[in-house]
Amino acid sequence: MPVLSLTVRLVLASQSPARLRVLRAAGIDPVVRVSGVDEDAVAAALTDPAPADVVVALAEAKARAVLGDLDADVLADAVVVGCDSMLHYGGDLVGKPATPEVARERWAKMSGGTGELLTGHAILRVRDGEVVDTAGGTESTTVRFGNVTPEEVDAYIATEEPLAVAGAFTLDGLGGWFLDGVDGDPSSVIGISLPLTRRLLSGLGVRVTDLWRSTR
Amino acid sequence: MPVLSLTVRLVLASQSPARLRVLRAAGIDPVVRVSGVDEDAVAAALTDPAPADVVVALAEAKARAVLGDLDADVLADAVVVGCDSMLHYGGDLVGKPATPEVARERWAKMSGGTGELLTGHAILRVRDGEVVDTAGGTESTTVRFGNVTPEEVDAYIATEEPLAVAGAFTLDGLGGWFLDGVDGDPSSVIGISLPLTRRLLSGLGVRVTDLWRSTR
Repeated sequence: MPVLSLTVRLVLASQSPARLRVLRAAGIDPVVRVSGVDEDAVAAALTDPAPADVVVALAEAKARAVLGDLDADVLADAVVVGCDSMLHYGGDLVGKPATPEVARERWAKMSGGTGELLTGHAILRVRDGEVVDTAGGTESTTVRFGNVTPEEVDAYIATEEPLAVAGAFTLDGLGGWFLDGVDGDPSSVIGISLPLTRRLLSGLGVRVTDLWRSTR
Repeated sequence: MPVLSLTVRLVLASQSPARLRVLRAAGIDPVVRVSGVDEDAVAAALTDPAPADVVVALAEAKARAVLGDLDADVLADAVVVGCDSMLHYGGDLVGKPATPEVARERWAKMSGGTGELLTGHAILRVRDGEVVDTAGGTESTTVRFGNVTPEEVDAYIATEEPLAVAGAFTLDGLGGWFLDGVDGDPSSVIGISLPLTRRLLSGLGVRVTDLWRSTR
């Protein structure tokens, strides 16, 4: 007997608390599963890929990796969302700084400049345990860094917030003081683009409003 | 004997839960006081004002209105932040829609278009109970509305979120799905511009990092 599902569930294939906060603030309580994808291996399997190809491939690999961790009642009717982001500054790909010294160097360069944040999403449409359709796309956003003093950078690094995040900044935390603005989608800078996710879902025949908790 | 204050306190002269959330996420737990300013009277007292003059005058009026509600220990060493925002769409000033019918008309017009959100801040520097300095400024941000279907608008209105907010949308709630992006500061769209507040505080000799809870 098929499992009756009243409504489609959204699965977030990410351990990022920032992405989860964005979704919850936007009315969705997702099922959260963390993928253990070997990102280097996925990227290495692509032939001469553009950055957009890389983030979408990684997003899809993450989404597919969590399928085995989902219960049958979720797999009966779900959309599984994978996400990947990369920040470019001055032509270079910028990751997590890891140490205070690297974070300090980054901010000395970034202060007063602009970076490009590329976010990729892949969504798997799952019904009765099978992936029946997929959609993927990217969003590019310009981030404008404020003119930050060495004293401000030191105080920011002392909080440890910038050490664990790509690009050594957040938009939705303490880093918000040091960003003069964005040209593009702010939610994609935090890690999950709401308008791109909505458009991809629509292409898969799913209305985002049907995923909101208030309509369940 | 003067009251000893270990550190300057930030007072938010606003009842907006969205502004409070922005400040808290950015590391500040403000003292919150709600002003009862007669906004029409303040605006009427200005001679042929530009929109930027109006939002700064209203922000300052709100900040001054709460001074009488603050305890002496706060007034010993504080910055009082007032905020005001207005949204223009197609040359018209857009307020709260109040009814589902008005919200539906608004979204029929806004879908796929752009609006201009103007945010004004005024900050009073208070020491030993006296306003010793003030700073004010504005931030203008372009908001790009997505192409939203009538079914999506109906579902959005059913949540009642758009009825109580200027412009009939939020960036930090369900409305985030329906905004393709911004050109400017996202925090100013939510109601308090972090980079503008930081610059105004700096002009008053206050480092925003000294207001963070982690450094207290």
